[in-house]
Amino acid sequence: MILTFLGTSASVPTKERAHTGLALRYNGEYFLFDCGENVQRQMMSTNVSPMKINNIFISHLHGDHILGLGGLLQSMALSNRKKPLKIFGPPKITETVENILKIGYHSISYDIEVVELELKPNKILSVNNSGNGYEIYCYPTNHSVPSLAYIFKELKAPKMDMAKVKNLGIEIGSKLKDLKDGKSVEIETFENGKSVKKTIIPQDVLVKNTEGVSFAYSGDTRPVYAFAMFLKDLNCKVLVHEATFDSSLLENALETMHSTFGEALKISEISEVKQLIITHISARYRSLEAYESEINDYLEKSTLHGKTLKLEIAKDFLEYDLKKLKVIKPKIKDKE
Amino acid sequence: MILTFLGTSASVPTKERAHTGLALRYNGEYFLFDCGENVQRQMMSTNVSPMKINNIFISHLHGDHILGLGGLLQSMALSNRKKPLKIFGPPKITETVENILKIGYHSISYDIEVVELELKPNKILSVNNSGNGYEIYCYPTNHSVPSLAYIFKELKAPKMDMAKVKNLGIEIGSKLKDLKDGKSVEIETFENGKSVKKTIIPQDVLVKNTEGVSFAYSGDTRPVYAFAMFLKDLNCKVLVHEATFDSSLLENALETMHSTFGEALKISEISEVKQLIITHISARYRSLEAYESEINDYLEKSTLHGKTLKLEIAKDFLEYDLKKLKVIKPKIKDKE
Repeated sequence: MILTFLGTSASVPTKERAHTGLALRYNGEYFLFDCGENVQRQMMSTNVSPMKINNIFISHLHGDHILGLGGLLQSMALSNRKKPLKIFGPPKITETVENILKIGYHSISYDIEVVELELKPNKILSVNNSGNGYEIYCYPTNHSVPSLAYIFKELKAPKMDMAKVKNLGIEIGSKLKDLKDGKSVEIETFENGKSVKKTIIPQDVLVKNTEGVSFAYSGDTRPVYAFAMFLKDLNCKVLVHEATFDSSLLENALETMHSTFGEALKISEISEVKQLIITHISARYRSLEAYESEINDYLEKSTLHGKTLKLEIAKDFLEYDLKKLKVIKPKIKDKE
Repeated sequence: MILTFLGTSASVPTKERAHTGLALRYNGEYFLFDCGENVQRQMMSTNVSPMKINNIFISHLHGDHILGLGGLLQSMALSNRKKPLKIFGPPKITETVENILKIGYHSISYDIEVVELELKPNKILSVNNSGNGYEIYCYPTNHSVPSLAYIFKELKAPKMDMAKVKNLGIEIGSKLKDLKDGKSVEIETFENGKSVKKTIIPQDVLVKNTEGVSFAYSGDTRPVYAFAMFLKDLNCKVLVHEATFDSSLLENALETMHSTFGEALKISEISEVKQLIITHISARYRSLEAYESEINDYLEKSTLHGKTLKLEIAKDFLEYDLKKLKVIKPKIKDKE
């Protein structure tokens, strides 16, 4: 359950930052969030495999978030992909994918299903095997064109408490399976030599499993407070939020419908995530001093208030472990 | 007059090789030949400036040669380009550029003129200031889809031989200008005290200037012998020819309508160019051993026959000086 940053630039790329792309590894498959130009080649410097991507989520239809789709889709065909691919996106995503596929001579060897999402909060994908799996949500954001954020939430089924099972005298077999599947069962036990019938409900023997991983990706947007509340309700742990500008450039952020670092921080605080990773960094920042000084300011204050939000500035090829809640690549000194 | 290799991979890029792009710097402007994905960002590692590109030449409409156009055109608009841009390409280039411009929300701040070329040899661009300037030609090649090669040829006007001018007694002024412009003039000289009228033709006072630079770019193609003859007639000096495969993989070359190194070499010999640079190298070559051993074989034989063809395997960011006929970046040991 690793997030890999494939591109972290704003609309103009730099030598160090490619156009936007973010991959999530989950159970041997990859989910791709946005696909800016050259995302397919950026993957070659990471473990992300294009052939293991089954779902692509597009935040909005600006070139820096979609112009890598054509190359990626054609390369999958060159590798003779047969597995179908799903592409989710805001209104006009269908037309956009159609236009992308019209470019140049090529043929696609697999089915592409385009899912055109409405601009409202929605559960858009859900895999649930007896309580284990994941859910993916979209949430409308506030950019200069129709835009969506996406939230991934792992599901973990409660575990059977085997000590309780033994104490209650439930035998391993079909009744235990029924309980696992959420059904109540009747069992017969002997107390003081007498047969006693009891109804056992799943809650009697199940304990809540550890919380699954979760993360949200904002796409390009002005800060949306309702989005932060939505993340809080989902108990979302990690937020990848755009911060195209440092806080001194609020005017630019307002004009171009982006967020400042301070605004991304505010959204993180309201949503009560444990980790904020800022991305979509404007090409004007040759060094990240402006952000780093804001981070330091924040950390000083947050220590005062006993807050524990972790902060990170994304860079290309950064890998983040959603389970351990820490950056694993490149290895860096812990900032805490 | 520098050639900069922006991408040198075949259809599948590698960590080291991006999709095709080749820029020519000439008199402060750039000519771009093909525009694979991420060419705009590859430029950032070179001196090539997108805003100084006025003409783009597309060899054929396969993704690895065109999918960088969308990003480049949109980035030019983001930089508020006003200068018009010309895009030349084979049949269907107009429709292709239209489809590319349909992708996503954006607006183009400058005029784009698309020139759809016929599949026949043609002079497609010519700038001639009193004999100085350049000409660009296209030549139909032989790939799996309609395809063109391009040839750039610098024009250099003959120079005035000032010693001859003085000997003939021509005064600096309008008559000299007429001669420069290719017109004959009448002058009056005095021989033995008598006035003598003479007609001076331009050839009497002009000497051929040093030959201008020239180069050809093959695009993707099977070897085309008539193209080699065309280059010979133009006295072309440098040939950038695809060699997707080494000579042992002729079958693959035949199947995919590409060239082997041996075939690119043959075209170079017929065309009598001084330098062959091979590009569009298949992703299968992790090391270039197969090519290098072919180069060594060739060089041994060519020494026997007194030939002087120089050979180079292109890599991303390689810069070649068309005037000095040598690689200038990265600095490498001379192989001769």
